[in-house]
Amino acid sequence: MRIVVLAGGIGGARFLRGLKQAAPDADITVIGNTGDDIHLFGLKVCPDLDTVMYTLGGGIDEEQGWGRSDETFHVKSELAAYGVGPEWFGLGDRDFATHIVRTQMLGAGYPLSAVTEALCARWKPGVRLLPMSDDRVETHVAVELDGERRAIHFQEYWVRLRASVDAQAVVPVGAEQAAPAPGVLEAIGEADVVLFPPSNPVVSIGTILAVPGIREAIADAGVPVVGLSPIVGDAPVRGMADKVLAAVGVESTAAAVARHYGSGLLDGWLVDTTDADRVGDVEAAGIRCRAVPLMMTDVDAAAAMAREALALAEEVRA
Amino acid sequence: MRIVVLAGGIGGARFLRGLKQAAPDADITVIGNTGDDIHLFGLKVCPDLDTVMYTLGGGIDEEQGWGRSDETFHVKSELAAYGVGPEWFGLGDRDFATHIVRTQMLGAGYPLSAVTEALCARWKPGVRLLPMSDDRVETHVAVELDGERRAIHFQEYWVRLRASVDAQAVVPVGAEQAAPAPGVLEAIGEADVVLFPPSNPVVSIGTILAVPGIREAIADAGVPVVGLSPIVGDAPVRGMADKVLAAVGVESTAAAVARHYGSGLLDGWLVDTTDADRVGDVEAAGIRCRAVPLMMTDVDAAAAMAREALALAEEVRA
Repeated sequence: MRIVVLAGGIGGARFLRGLKQAAPDADITVIGNTGDDIHLFGLKVCPDLDTVMYTLGGGIDEEQGWGRSDETFHVKSELAAYGVGPEWFGLGDRDFATHIVRTQMLGAGYPLSAVTEALCARWKPGVRLLPMSDDRVETHVAVELDGERRAIHFQEYWVRLRASVDAQAVVPVGAEQAAPAPGVLEAIGEADVVLFPPSNPVVSIGTILAVPGIREAIADAGVPVVGLSPIVGDAPVRGMADKVLAAVGVESTAAAVARHYGSGLLDGWLVDTTDADRVGDVEAAGIRCRAVPLMMTDVDAAAAMAREALALAEEVRA
Repeated sequence: MRIVVLAGGIGGARFLRGLKQAAPDADITVIGNTGDDIHLFGLKVCPDLDTVMYTLGGGIDEEQGWGRSDETFHVKSELAAYGVGPEWFGLGDRDFATHIVRTQMLGAGYPLSAVTEALCARWKPGVRLLPMSDDRVETHVAVELDGERRAIHFQEYWVRLRASVDAQAVVPVGAEQAAPAPGVLEAIGEADVVLFPPSNPVVSIGTILAVPGIREAIADAGVPVVGLSPIVGDAPVRGMADKVLAAVGVESTAAAVARHYGSGLLDGWLVDTTDADRVGDVEAAGIRCRAVPLMMTDVDAAAAMAREALALAEEVRA
């Protein structure tokens, strides 16, 4: 079975670990969000790609869900001693090596997809990890700070401000001019099922879908497209997805997110058992829906979710 | 008193620490060798400038004489895990931060001299540290490897091969087109004395002198120019200077190095007490010479050497 998964960071990575356990023989292609990529200290940092790579490759800091295990922060503290920031972005020493290799390869002319493949040659994530695009896309968030409207990098909004102010707009700058990375459309075209993990529907999956051609390829693939709600009990399971959902005029409910994707794209949707009362709303929108436990407390729980998603896909197909 | 010092790495840095103790009120400008600079992992590394900066700023690994104290090597080991080398060049995590800041500033358009000044704003070395040039100069060494004549980067010769094969030629590539960095010629023109520490006469001081205008400015300054022999008892005090001296046809003796600089440039020369029998040779070449202890066993010993150098300069002047 060929499975295509659109993934953001922590939620996507943990779901993928479950999916690998649930479908050990599947051929999994991950289309990773690069809209939250950022240049820091002259280095190209791809937080979502790395979270997937480290999580599936066994190098992740399990507790925080991002960054490397057994990490130290000497480079960062020295940069701070030079007065060079930002200090709000937590890059560890081991993690720096990834960004140094990536930046060096990009500087030598390799596209991000080739760089990602080279990095994965070490991590062996057990999936094919593709960036959504080799072109630069950078998610900006419009906010009002000190009475002034400004567009800031998503990471500044998410990590520095902890989404503490309202997002007035979320714009994947450059997406319109971006092309899907080599292999992305082909993987979608050859997929037996497409899954949306419980990643952020706006700044993760939404950004991937904003790359011209990807949404259309999924809608036209003629295979089941099943998603898992990142909203449980009207609140994001992790992160601050409600803030960016509000910016695009979507309520923070499991049903509203499904309707946001829409029945033209989504065939099936899993909501958490606490949101069982939303199933009717979703089905009324033409999307088949089931209520199952959606808390990824461990790999087994994530695997159970993946099995439910694949079962719903088969139901849709039949 | 205004003192200009031409410096390579460890020998120059340790001498400078002694000079600062010997002449605490002096205004010291250091012209640092950049011929052994190297791009590693896409980062610009300036070993000699950093050794001076770290040594005078209190951040040096005292035992090995280069690199940072209290150092860890996580970035490097991760780079190796990615299969990215070279592994023979020892960059520690704290040291990486310096190269990241430097590379980022150079990428933003600042010349190396401005970058060096910015880095020194943190380290406060107590001297004005200038790179010999803002232009790229890279010392290459011609060697015969596996029966084939090749030109390799000085660092590859020095660090990877440990100078284990004969150097057939030493070429400061780019030096002819390089201009002295801003402030270099001015500092020489305003100096009361110019000192050559016991740095490598070929690949450190020789490279600085190869930048058009520097040798001439020193020769024409009309102030005492005094050097200290890096050769003691016909062998280099540290490093493998004999190998590169042979490449330029100079014997590894304290007297031969003085003659190599020549009386047109050098007014005074200090040899070690064990080389007292060479004093006559040097004076016969028109260079005033004294035999004094030249082993920099500690800062006090380096300070005593600096005092001897300054005393010889006054003798020359009088």
